[in-house]
Amino acid sequence: MTEQKQTSCTPREELYERIGKFQERLRKAGIQAALVVQKADLFYFSGTCQDAHLLIPTQGEPLLMVRKSYERALEDSALEKIIAVRSFKDIGSNIAGMLTGNGKIGMELDVLPVNLFSRYKKMLEPLEIVDVSGVIREIRMIKTPYEIDCLRDAASLTAEMFAEIPNFIEEGMTEIELSGKIELFLRVRGNQYPRIRAFNQELSIHILSGWNAAYPSYFDGPTGGSGVNSSSPIGSGYKKIGRNEPILIDYGPVLNGYMVDHTRIYSFGPLSDKLMEAHNTALEIKRRIAREAKPGLDGKDLYDIAIGMAEQSGFAQHFMGYGVSFIGHGVGLELDELPVIARNYSIKMQPGMTIALEPKFIFPDEGTVGIEDTFLVTENGLEPFIPALDDAIQIL
Amino acid sequence: MTEQKQTSCTPREELYERIGKFQERLRKAGIQAALVVQKADLFYFSGTCQDAHLLIPTQGEPLLMVRKSYERALEDSALEKIIAVRSFKDIGSNIAGMLTGNGKIGMELDVLPVNLFSRYKKMLEPLEIVDVSGVIREIRMIKTPYEIDCLRDAASLTAEMFAEIPNFIEEGMTEIELSGKIELFLRVRGNQYPRIRAFNQELSIHILSGWNAAYPSYFDGPTGGSGVNSSSPIGSGYKKIGRNEPILIDYGPVLNGYMVDHTRIYSFGPLSDKLMEAHNTALEIKRRIAREAKPGLDGKDLYDIAIGMAEQSGFAQHFMGYGVSFIGHGVGLELDELPVIARNYSIKMQPGMTIALEPKFIFPDEGTVGIEDTFLVTENGLEPFIPALDDAIQIL
Repeated sequence: MTEQKQTSCTPREELYERIGKFQERLRKAGIQAALVVQKADLFYFSGTCQDAHLLIPTQGEPLLMVRKSYERALEDSALEKIIAVRSFKDIGSNIAGMLTGNGKIGMELDVLPVNLFSRYKKMLEPLEIVDVSGVIREIRMIKTPYEIDCLRDAASLTAEMFAEIPNFIEEGMTEIELSGKIELFLRVRGNQYPRIRAFNQELSIHILSGWNAAYPSYFDGPTGGSGVNSSSPIGSGYKKIGRNEPILIDYGPVLNGYMVDHTRIYSFGPLSDKLMEAHNTALEIKRRIAREAKPGLDGKDLYDIAIGMAEQSGFAQHFMGYGVSFIGHGVGLELDELPVIARNYSIKMQPGMTIALEPKFIFPDEGTVGIEDTFLVTENGLEPFIPALDDAIQIL
Repeated sequence: MTEQKQTSCTPREELYERIGKFQERLRKAGIQAALVVQKADLFYFSGTCQDAHLLIPTQGEPLLMVRKSYERALEDSALEKIIAVRSFKDIGSNIAGMLTGNGKIGMELDVLPVNLFSRYKKMLEPLEIVDVSGVIREIRMIKTPYEIDCLRDAASLTAEMFAEIPNFIEEGMTEIELSGKIELFLRVRGNQYPRIRAFNQELSIHILSGWNAAYPSYFDGPTGGSGVNSSSPIGSGYKKIGRNEPILIDYGPVLNGYMVDHTRIYSFGPLSDKLMEAHNTALEIKRRIAREAKPGLDGKDLYDIAIGMAEQSGFAQHFMGYGVSFIGHGVGLELDELPVIARNYSIKMQPGMTIALEPKFIFPDEGTVGIEDTFLVTENGLEPFIPALDDAIQIL
């Protein structure tokens, strides 16, 4: 049964270290236990993405209750106590057996739908359900050495992908064709779908050329894109890749759950001086932020530095596109992790954070130039996950 | 700016017909209005998937409030009243301007996360928020002639895909390679990612061979698959496609938002008599259900017919796999639409329903045989969306 099966189990010590941090936060907050259900969080604390509930009490051993598939959860998870459950009721009685009296139990209320919440409320009475999604996101924000290794694997695949772009790309091909070829390249290397935490956001691949990289969308990022139709109105579309227009490759491969996020610009033939200048401004912003972003520095001050430089360059009105007021975001098991480097958003830089820093300039009709690199916050500022990747516009 | 841009606008009369049905249901339920936010529902009632809120009062013109992108919502949506809003507060005051006094307002509480719900609650006070997701799902369950045409387009692409399989498939290739090649074929033809409504469910492509098609997973469907790692533990994996094992191609292309769902079995060289017999039983079940499922018939009785036939065949313990007790589901803008044809789930067949009927037999170590076809419920029973597609096992 195990021919060719690939598993990448999160080490036991790693899981218990993460759980320990969470338990400490729960104790401080006066919460009896947490019940983790969302896939990314469940994977983080248990090592499995099966249909399971993880009960983490303030002290002692957590209990992984698996509805489906129990056998696979046993293979995936290095936790001590893993049991099979059949129903919601089963889960309830197991929890009641572990927790006594009143008190608070934490759940991920940023993602849990209202109707499901009502069922949990009934199941967990007299416990009061409180939100622990903020705490979980803060713990996950600081990457462990094990996680940094996972991110480096995703970064290696990203570097491989960019090295292949000149072999994939052809003048006159559609964006979706280029995107599909890159997707196939990554797919056979174990790439998986990125997870996004925010409600109603959907995955989209931003391989965009010329005006389409400046085409607005619902997405709270600098670029949008037409997508393929009005029900999938984002990312690559039917537009043909032409000459003398910037081709934006913004892709975050995902390996073993972990993703990085990088953007590079290509062009068939030269681009206008204006676009080249704006691109260089983006690179200067990136380098300056990478130097400044030492532990203790506030994200909102980094944002202000970037805006200041964009203003000085004369391209301020094109910076980050339509009403978007951030320049970077955390990545890991989800595309939209903490921290966010944004206007008036106060958050102190800490070692172990990741930042996908993406200063970009968006010119309607002409397209998008700029850069995105994923960094690790270290004592000396930002350390790139792919140090050797050229960030100049690649003229083909 | 419009070079190559593809839009497929939902016709105006279509939108107002759908809204009219919803308004009637709201009136009957004594609900003042509904506020629609989820992407599939928003697309259904407004024609756009931009970041927008659609307020549907019990009578009169709905109001589409668009945060981003207003320009694109204007292009996409044939609704009368479309306005730009900047913030949550803006949305609140627009609603307050349209609705007076107390009363109930409907939202999609099956998908809306708790924390967001709290914000809406404050915004909408003194209105009481009630769940209208059931009503919306029931309306969407009955497809209009326009939607049936959209489904036929997706079915045509599916037929094209199956016709190409013999050209893609090679003995010894991995499942993810075959899957990636099919994905590329569909991608350049406008395929988009399927939407799934249920919490914590994720897209997965079930191109599986031999034992891996019988490998259990968290998914509430007959097949699972190893996936590529423990954080993406479902669907195609690294397993190589071998000889004399069933190769399952279960794929639902999505065009203009609409999807169908079909499965075919291939094999390099013959399969055992047992597998061939089980496959034929699945075909008999499909044909019998297709004849019986006339309007008025109850889904649970259809399920019982299928189970009865599985029992008679001697393969009952392999029917539908690990603890799964359904044989079909609706498809449309989402993969998990109503109706569900399941054990003890009472639902009367009605013209305009879609059913992806998927009797399958799962044999650990050997794999999965069986079929999936998407049908329309008509006065005469089920009408297949792809009538000419051979449902025998294709020996390569």
